[in-house]
Amino acid sequence: MNKIITVGREFGSGGRELGKRLADLLHIAYYDKEIVTEIAKKTSLAESYVHQVMEHNPTIYYPITIGHSFYPMVNPIMDLNNSIYVEQSRIIKEMADESDCVIVGRCADYILRERKPMRLFVYADMQFKMDRCRKKAPSDEEPLSDKELKQHITSIDKNRSKYYQFFTGQKWGERINYDFCINTTNLSIKEVALAISRMF
Amino acid sequence: MNKIITVGREFGSGGRELGKRLADLLHIAYYDKEIVTEIAKKTSLAESYVHQVMEHNPTIYYPITIGHSFYPMVNPIMDLNNSIYVEQSRIIKEMADESDCVIVGRCADYILRERKPMRLFVYADMQFKMDRCRKKAPSDEEPLSDKELKQHITSIDKNRSKYYQFFTGQKWGERINYDFCINTTNLSIKEVALAISRMF
Repeated sequence: MNKIITVGREFGSGGRELGKRLADLLHIAYYDKEIVTEIAKKTSLAESYVHQVMEHNPTIYYPITIGHSFYPMVNPIMDLNNSIYVEQSRIIKEMADESDCVIVGRCADYILRERKPMRLFVYADMQFKMDRCRKKAPSDEEPLSDKELKQHITSIDKNRSKYYQFFTGQKWGERINYDFCINTTNLSIKEVALAISRMF
Repeated sequence: MNKIITVGREFGSGGRELGKRLADLLHIAYYDKEIVTEIAKKTSLAESYVHQVMEHNPTIYYPITIGHSFYPMVNPIMDLNNSIYVEQSRIIKEMADESDCVIVGRCADYILRERKPMRLFVYADMQFKMDRCRKKAPSDEEPLSDKELKQHITSIDKNRSKYYQFFTGQKWGERINYDFCINTTNLSIKEVALAISRMF
């Protein structure tokens, strides 16, 4: 069985950087946006649509409750979203079967649970995440106000949380679902990557 | 400023072992039960009483609410408990000023927050904690049933959580209050200690 590291991460916490550094240090494959590209290829959907479904509009996954009974929302959008998740699971399992790798996001910790990945969750203080987002923002973009940026970060994480909970039945970021939870606020991501890589 | 590692831990998770291993690897001081001994010396209370207050009966710290107003419970027991906390804070700060060290439990992460310690929280699945407790139990003791052992573990952690929340105003085990949260269920404590020691 290949060795797998999965990285759940709060938006702006540096989780992607940590995942990338780990993959580079260990000379193993790194999958992040590649998963979206692969799903788009397999489903003939636009990458931007797949990304939208996976990150920005998970409320439409939500099942509806009528009275005390529970009915899944049966409609074409729901079917499509489920198809994307099924395709995502298949692709992630293929990637994990192919070689040792780091996979960022996409419920990979849950999808690969039988392969016993090392499951990381990366988080940070809001101020740290805001500062990091500002540094990473394209210079030609109108900067958001503090309030807007905070709302943006909170909203992305809320959607990730809903998406994760819907498909895994687990709570996103809850420590028992991970092996290491790493707060990047006061730590050097480079050093954390080095330390974790030595345990792999 | 000395380098400090604080270790919060669920009962049975191996947090103490991780703390001890870290201190040994780094050749720095290790404080755990020593804190209780010191408090007992300074307050002239029995060690067993100090331990009881700190770990097993924090409900008596709880303030009482009358109507919609909030009154601290003013009585000799409450005073004594507060005195123990004050003494504990003083001793922990002294220890941190003296040399680099690892301090297990006792709200040290909060008490030393201005000294920016590396704050670890160690936890594990219930089954792992139960197995670990059984292995560590003295052989001449009547073994607890699974139900009793689970209740025992849950109850100790509930008390630790109440104690921590009362004196720090923070939630015990909540990831944002720590730099690393470590799930020992699937990890080798020896290897985790080695990895963390390299970041120190």
